Amino acid sequence: MNEAPPRVLTIAGSDSGGGAGIQADLKTMLALGVHGMSVVTAVTAQNSLGVQGAWEVPVEAVRAQFRSVVDDIGVDAVKTGMLSSVPLVECVADLLTTLPPDVPVVVDPVAVSKHGDTLLAPDAQQVVRDVLLPRATVVTPNLAEAAALTGLRITDAASQRDAAERLLERGPRWVLLTGGHLAGPAVDLLTDGTTEVLLEAPRQDNRHTHGTGCTLASAIASWLARGDDVPEAVRQAKAYVTGALSQGFALGTGIGPVHHGWALGAAGGAQRGG
Amino acid sequence: MNEAPPRVLTIAGSDSGGGAGIQADLKTMLALGVHGMSVVTAVTAQNSLGVQGAWEVPVEAVRAQFRSVVDDIGVDAVKTGMLSSVPLVECVADLLTTLPPDVPVVVDPVAVSKHGDTLLAPDAQQVVRDVLLPRATVVTPNLAEAAALTGLRITDAASQRDAAERLLERGPRWVLLTGGHLAGPAVDLLTDGTTEVLLEAPRQDNRHTHGTGCTLASAIASWLARGDDVPEAVRQAKAYVTGALSQGFALGTGIGPVHHGWALGAAGGAQRGG
Repeated sequence: MNEAPPRVLTIAGSDSGGGAGIQADLKTMLALGVHGMSVVTAVTAQNSLGVQGAWEVPVEAVRAQFRSVVDDIGVDAVKTGMLSSVPLVECVADLLTTLPPDVPVVVDPVAVSKHGDTLLAPDAQQVVRDVLLPRATVVTPNLAEAAALTGLRITDAASQRDAAERLLERGPRWVLLTGGHLAGPAVDLLTDGTTEVLLEAPRQDNRHTHGTGCTLASAIASWLARGDDVPEAVRQAKAYVTGALSQGFALGTGIGPVHHGWALGAAGGAQRGG
Repeated sequence: MNEAPPRVLTIAGSDSGGGAGIQADLKTMLALGVHGMSVVTAVTAQNSLGVQGAWEVPVEAVRAQFRSVVDDIGVDAVKTGMLSSVPLVECVADLLTTLPPDVPVVVDPVAVSKHGDTLLAPDAQQVVRDVLLPRATVVTPNLAEAAALTGLRITDAASQRDAAERLLERGPRWVLLTGGHLAGPAVDLLTDGTTEVLLEAPRQDNRHTHGTGCTLASAIASWLARGDDVPEAVRQAKAYVTGALSQGFALGTGIGPVHHGWALGAAGGAQRGG
């Protein structure tokens, strides 16, 4: 009998171009040796230039997908991404309450795409804050998302810390506030209010960064499912994302994706055989 | 500038359990070193016990996803899977006519799930035959699908060959008729009417085979995108599937999935770093 890998579920939107959304999540999970599963919340028509269309999945279909996965297969970690609308945020928050309390949940509070297209209705952002953050083991906002969730302007390391503390008041165990868009070195701040970890990565001269946020959150979920604690899972995830970013490639005429297979060797895992 | 991998598009349904559908396709593509993209045709709630629900994506959303991918990013190969209904089959066939004629198309004429759940409306099967097969570079039916498409009973190697010839009359360049459910050794027949290749694989004592058909078709598309001709792409794909089948694992209480990461090392491609 072959041993099953750890099981990780993403609850997110589909990106047809394959660089972000459940596509980024599933690729990350395969690269990190866990079994990836997905609850699709919305289907987007999307490429390197932006989001050309988005279609929400019915609430009952989101619920059914979740129950099919959790009740039969089970999960070792969950990641949430694009949740699109108030009814879907409320549905997902409700579903998460039915998980065993020791299952870690990584919440990526996605609001807009890399191109500024809306992926979450404006009235849904406060619902994310009020009903989703309390169940989060780690919430992974970037600066814009943290600003929207807290109402703070974040311009430097001090306001980054203030925003993280404000977010902790909403109930997540840990906040990882990525600092990629601040001036100076890119420093991510991870804190649970007691322990504080600063993660610095070299700035990369590569504009092909589509999918970075999804990839980071699903990598954290993957390492948590493999048994790491939060600081170690975040460190490992950051190392994976840094590699994927350094290998991001042009695809289409706009912003290309990070390279999910960067650690798998020159030709992915492809071995000629047969 | 990092070089982009070959680009492969799957047009198929989503399997929440992660073992089949676009999930199997995207995992296969990552494992085989190509960039996977997807047009979602339907969202299913599915696990090791069967399909608990299915929701079709609107025709205009299928069209928009395809255009977003093809018009900006481009494709080196396309694979089709679950197409659900007559309008979606007709829509996809129409979209395929807009591809450059040298882009290979692998058609997996999915009709029912491993558990017998319907994934294609009965009236859509003849539409697949009439409008989709003519654009197929390779069509990859199993015995049940070939029987449904041809009306023939397939019980042995001779009737397997008859069915393949009947399918060739519908216009695909090649037919790969898998023989996994015939008595005796499992022999797949690949033919274009002139060249005939028999591919034998050892029977495996492993019931965790969910996703085999999707994985085979998307592996063929991946190797075609990498530049192989059809017989070589099929040989390589068969080697990948044989490995994935041998490593299939229990997940849930029913039929578990093949192992898409089997060739990536003990822990997927995961390397501790950072």
